This record gives sequence, C-alpha cells and structure tokens, in this order.
Amino acid sequence: MYTLDEIGKKAKQVTTTLAKASTEDKNEALRLIAKELIENQEQILEENAKDLKSAEEKGISTSVIDRIRLTEERIKGMSDALVQLTELDDPIGRVLEQWQRPNQLEIRKTAVPIGVIGIIYEARPNVTVDAASLCLKTGNAVVLRGSSSAIHSNIAIVSVIQKALKQSSLPVDSVQLIEDTDRKTAERMFRLNTYLDVLIPRGSKKLIDTVVSQSSVPVLETGAGNCHMYIDHDADPDMAVQLVINAKTQRPSVCNAIETVLIEKQWFKTHGKQLIEALKAHDVKMHGDHAVITLDDSIIEADETDWETEYLDLEIAIKTVESVDDAIDHINHYGTSHSEAIISQTEDHTVRFMNEIDAACVYHNASTRFTDGFEFGFGAEIGISTQKLHARGPMGLEALTSTKYQLYGNGQYKA
Amino acid sequence: MYTLDEIGKKAKQVTTTLAKASTEDKNEALRLIAKELIENQEQILEENAKDLKSAEEKGISTSVIDRIRLTEERIKGMSDALVQLTELDDPIGRVLEQWQRPNQLEIRKTAVPIGVIGIIYEARPNVTVDAASLCLKTGNAVVLRGSSSAIHSNIAIVSVIQKALKQSSLPVDSVQLIEDTDRKTAERMFRLNTYLDVLIPRGSKKLIDTVVSQSSVPVLETGAGNCHMYIDHDADPDMAVQLVINAKTQRPSVCNAIETVLIEKQWFKTHGKQLIEALKAHDVKMHGDHAVITLDDSIIEADETDWETEYLDLEIAIKTVESVDDAIDHINHYGTSHSEAIISQTEDHTVRFMNEIDAACVYHNASTRFTDGFEFGFGAEIGISTQKLHARGPMGLEALTSTKYQLYGNGQYKA
Repeated sequence: MYTLDEIGKKAKQVTTTLAKASTEDKNEALRLIAKELIENQEQILEENAKDLKSAEEKGISTSVIDRIRLTEERIKGMSDALVQLTELDDPIGRVLEQWQRPNQLEIRKTAVPIGVIGIIYEARPNVTVDAASLCLKTGNAVVLRGSSSAIHSNIAIVSVIQKALKQSSLPVDSVQLIEDTDRKTAERMFRLNTYLDVLIPRGSKKLIDTVVSQSSVPVLETGAGNCHMYIDHDADPDMAVQLVINAKTQRPSVCNAIETVLIEKQWFKTHGKQLIEALKAHDVKMHGDHAVITLDDSIIEADETDWETEYLDLEIAIKTVESVDDAIDHINHYGTSHSEAIISQTEDHTVRFMNEIDAACVYHNASTRFTDGFEFGFGAEIGISTQKLHARGPMGLEALTSTKYQLYGNGQYKA
Repeated sequence: MYTLDEIGKKAKQVTTTLAKASTEDKNEALRLIAKELIENQEQILEENAKDLKSAEEKGISTSVIDRIRLTEERIKGMSDALVQLTELDDPIGRVLEQWQRPNQLEIRKTAVPIGVIGIIYEARPNVTVDAASLCLKTGNAVVLRGSSSAIHSNIAIVSVIQKALKQSSLPVDSVQLIEDTDRKTAERMFRLNTYLDVLIPRGSKKLIDTVVSQSSVPVLETGAGNCHMYIDHDADPDMAVQLVINAKTQRPSVCNAIETVLIEKQWFKTHGKQLIEALKAHDVKMHGDHAVITLDDSIIEADETDWETEYLDLEIAIKTVESVDDAIDHINHYGTSHSEAIISQTEDHTVRFMNEIDAACVYHNASTRFTDGFEFGFGAEIGISTQKLHARGPMGLEALTSTKYQLYGNGQYKA
C-alpha cells in the first residue's frame, strides 16, 4: 500500500505522458478497460459481496446498500458507458483562440489537461469507473478516494483498470486508488496542493461542505438544488401544471427537481385548484401560505424553513406572490443558484427573470429537469457546478480541461 | 464602521442591480470616479501623508514606503486608467455559445458577473482604485481589504469612490472597504462563503500562500514565476543573447523575468562566452554549473537552491543540458508553471517544448516579459494566474466573469 505522498508523486509524474497522449491512445485505453471489466466481473462481484456483507452486518440502510451493490447488469452499464465515451470528441489540443499582436507575436490559447484530479466520493463503486474514465479521456491523472463501505469493490475495480492500462500505451499510474480509508488520510488529501490541481467531491451535501471548508486544493463544487418554478399571471394553465408535475415528481430525489412553486395571485385564483389537484393526484405532500391552505385541508401551513428546504421527495412548498419581482426576490434569497424556471407569456417578465435570477440555469417554459450534462448534449457529466468559478451548471469533459498560452515569435523582446 | 457580516450582506444585496447595469451606466460611474479622484486629490494626499509618517516612525523599509506613497502624478495615473477602462468592451451579457437540442430546447451560455469579489492586498493604495474599477466594469461588487500601513489612504480613496458612486446610477455599496485591519478580521474574510464568491490576493507570495491555505472561499491565485529560457543547439546567437538579456534585465523584479537559463552543450561551447559577457556587461550576478564556471571567475558555482530560486534581481542561474528533453524535465521539475521559453530553429524541438512544458505561457523565440494582460492586448490586468482552474496566465476582464445558462422552451418536460 502506497502512502498518500507516493500516490501524489506518481500521479504528478505521469501527467506529461498523459498530456501528450493521442486521442486514439486514450480511446484504446478506455476500450481495454471496458473489455477487462466484463472479463473480470466475477472477481469484482466477489469483492463487492464482501462490502455488501460487511454493510449488512453494520446495519447500514438498504438505500445505501443498494448504492454499493454491483450486478452483472450494472457492470455492463459501466462498460457500455466507457465505449460511449470513446465516441466523444477529444477536448484536448483544441485551439480556443488565436490572435496576433502588433509586434507580430502570435498568441494561441490551447485546451490542455488540468493535471492531477482528486476525486472524493461515497458508497457507489460505479463512480470509480466513471471518474477514472472521464479523467483519462481528458488526459488527466486521477487519485480516487472512495468510502470504506465500498473499499473491496474499489480495490478490485482499480486493479482491473490498471490491468487494462498495462496493455495500453497510457501509464498504469494514470488511475490510482487511496486504499487507506482513514479519515485523517482524506483530510491530508484536502491539503495535498503539491500534487493535486483540483479536488472534486461527489456525494452528499455534508461531504461537499467538508471538502469546501477544509481543502486548500481548489475544489470543483457541485451543490444542492433548492429549485423553484414561478407561474406568471398569464401562464398557460395546462403547461404550468404539466411542468410543475414533471419538475417535482419525475424523479424527486435529484438536485434539479423543484422544491417550491411560486404563483402569481391572479393565476392562482383562476387555476390554483387545478394545480393543487394534480399535485394531490401525484401524492405530493404540500406546504402552502395562507392563500394556498384555504384550497385543500391536506395542505400544511408553510413556515420559513419550508422556503429553505430541499425536500428531495414527493413534497413541495407553494407560495403566492404579487409579481415577477416578488418571485425574483424570493428565489435570489432562498435559492441555491442551481435551476430556476418561469412559466409566462409576457416577454418583459421573462426577460427580467432570465437576466435577474442568479443561477447556473434559468428556464423559460420548460422543466428544470434538463439541468444535466446528457440533456445538454455534452455526452458525459462530471456533476453540476453551483459555484461561479471555472465551470457553472452541468459540467461535461471541458470542465476537466485547463488552458495554456503558446506564443510564437521571431525574436520579440520588451522595449 | 460596519462589521464584516454587514459589509458582506450589503455587497450581496447590490449584486442584482450591478448585474443588470448597462455598459453606459458602468462607464459613467468610472468617469465620475476618475473626476472625483482629481478633484479630491488634496484630501487623499493629506491622508496618505499620515500613512507615510506612521510608516517612517515604524521604520518600514524605503521600498515599502515608496509603494505606499501617492503623488499628484500617481493619482493622475489612476484617474487616466479609469478613463481607459471605459473604452474597453463590456464582457457582460455576451452570448458565448448557443445551440438547440433535438427537443427544440434552446440553450444559451451567457457571460455574467461573478457576484461579490473580495480583494486582499498590501501596501499599494493604487490597488484600491485598480481593483474597484475592474470589478465595477464587470458588474461585480467588491469588498476591499488593504493593509494597515495604507489604511488612511484607502479610507480616503474609497470615500471618494463612494462619493462618485452616489452621483452615478450604481449602488454606493458596490465598493466597500473593510476598515478593521485586524488580522483576525482578514481570517474571517477567508471563510465568508455566504457572501463572497471569490477571493483575490494581490501581493507577496506569503500573502498568497496564507490565503490559499486558509480560505474556504474559492481563490484566484496569482503566483510566483521561476521562469526559464532554454537555448537550443541551433539558436541564433544574437537573438538568444538579446532575449536572455531582455528577459532578465529589462525589469528583474517582476514575475515574468527569467531566473534560470538552460543551454544546450554544443551551443554553449560555441557561443557561451558571448552570453556570459553580455550578462556581465549588464551587471548580472551569475550562478553556473561546472561547465559554466570555467568560463569566468566571477561566476559562482550553482547548487540545488539556485534552480529553485526566484531571484527577482540582477542575478541568474545558468545550466548546460544535453538536449531539449533535459530542458523540459528540468523546467517541469523546478518551474512554477508561469512563463517558459525556447530559442530554437528546430521545429521538432519547438513543438515538443511548446506542448510538453506545463506552464501558463510557453514562448518560442520571444522574451517571457510579454506575459502581461496589456501585452496580450486585454487592455486591463487582474493578475497572472498560475493555477489551472477558471483562468490561467494573464487575466483580463473576462477572468472576473462567470456564466449562466438560459434555456428557452415551449413546454418541454423530461420524459
């Protein structure tokens, strides 16, 4: 078992080779990993069974156990995703901008790998393959740190990945796992600035908050989604109801599902009943303001905490507002800058909402559920950034790239 | 005097107004500040005199005192820079990318302000105007934290800026100064994630290291430059000598000056003497390896620390190498990923150097002294980033922007 410093050093050492790897070399490595995963699935499932047994013995919740669980089908899914990744364009080496200065100095801004990426994640062993493959595709070395609950699965998977890398032209140390699951080791990883260029936490809000607050390595933060839908005075009632139902109920556990619906008063008077009944029919538990609770006995009176809560469940807060301004103020105050929508036919209101809401994604007349790398057409997704630097919103392969300026001269010096 | 939280809150509150400010409103505010600086220069110089007196009493070094000092000419320079800034394009509101999904959902990626920017800096009161104006131009609110040694000057300058803002259509709280110069307050600022979107330290390596290591707010890191120039076997001797002299001596105290020159052995045999004599003629103190010290008695034998040192002075390390590979290895090991140059006529060597060196800026046949926002043609410079996320190399106004996805639909929901 290597120490954290040895792992960091080995990762840093392979970055030059990885940065100059050809697209075909990288894709070949991904195909080899896809093949080895299938060929070694028995071994992976055996090791996964150890994690499952240990989780059951510890009385870990069934939902977490389900996240740890691998099956032949899930391994097939991981393998297929690797092959799909080979079909995406290589973001490395693209000349993003190019210009010439009056002194004839030619400047090119080129996409390059970031270098060494640290990934900290929880239960799901499929993240091991997913994170490793996205980093390889973008020419980055990756240092993985999963949770102790999936350690046998993760060791088995990384061993299979390294077996494939040995057959490829990429360095074996391109993908490494920190096998030491001690919390102190993770904390040291947060401060491994010498070797890590970025840390990406993937998992619960608690994990992300810990990494953000303790890390001196730059963090790519993916955050919580307290998302809203605002129904304007002239919103098409059928569209509005359909979009609220979709954004709330299609998959309530995800960050781009809505948590609060804000409704302009006149629209609520005319169509409120229709919306409440649709939510009721979908078994959505409702919290509402004074105007809302009068419509149905089952609606609980909302308080301040409801406006702040990310239910991630079949549960919603409903508030009537005077105007689009009220809606914007409420969202900019309580929202988490993730995904926000307006349903309206008034251009002026729409323009103001789209411009004044401070969020990664703002929607007009569509469900917030499209905030997703695949739905955006990126073909891959690292996560959804809710921070303002580097990348904001769904992050595709480009989010794993940096840039480099290449300047070509013929003897220019500074006067 | 407001508390840190009050300042943060007020900054956050004005972000919506600032984000929708028109280009003309922002430029008008910059022109008003330029005017007020000149009209109130007497008051500013009086307050600056207090800082100078106190610095002298404390026995602060003359070079730091010079950084604190304001003069009519320096204030004129600050005022002129503000007017020049109004002539630059507004980076906010530009549609950076735009595409349509198969379901007709239209996606636009638009440039928006970051929000609230915290600037931590040392002695120079001109940074107060510089940082504030760049943030205003990009629609960001700014919270400034200067050093106690320039506190009277800073208070006077921010009071003049706010006087100008009162006459403009931008909120007065767009620019605020933390008047409390206690170190504990700065440390709390590092963790003010609720209100600050980014922290930019401007000053010494020590200041930057402190902010990077202690901050939970994302940091835009501007770093040290241990820059190199590699002279290849067939480098034009006159060009090589001229570029080494320029990159070392034109302004030795800056981060894009070179600190080590690497020389291919055959070139050194033929032209080494010419280079050494030129450096000697420019009073450059030299540290060299075994081959180099044989050429002149004044050259000190270099050791490991010389390869690591950023002299920032008329002092240089010289090393002979076998090949471009050796040069690349040396630079990727000892460099700080700032600015690196190759002088060569061999295409293969040049391509490898330009691709394999891991640095913000790599040069072919030109001086490293062009790593600068103005030399790049950005018209402004926030600093030179040596980190890999968000921005790398010289940062112009764009580095102070984030993005937002605006999605336009006609009822799209996720199936």
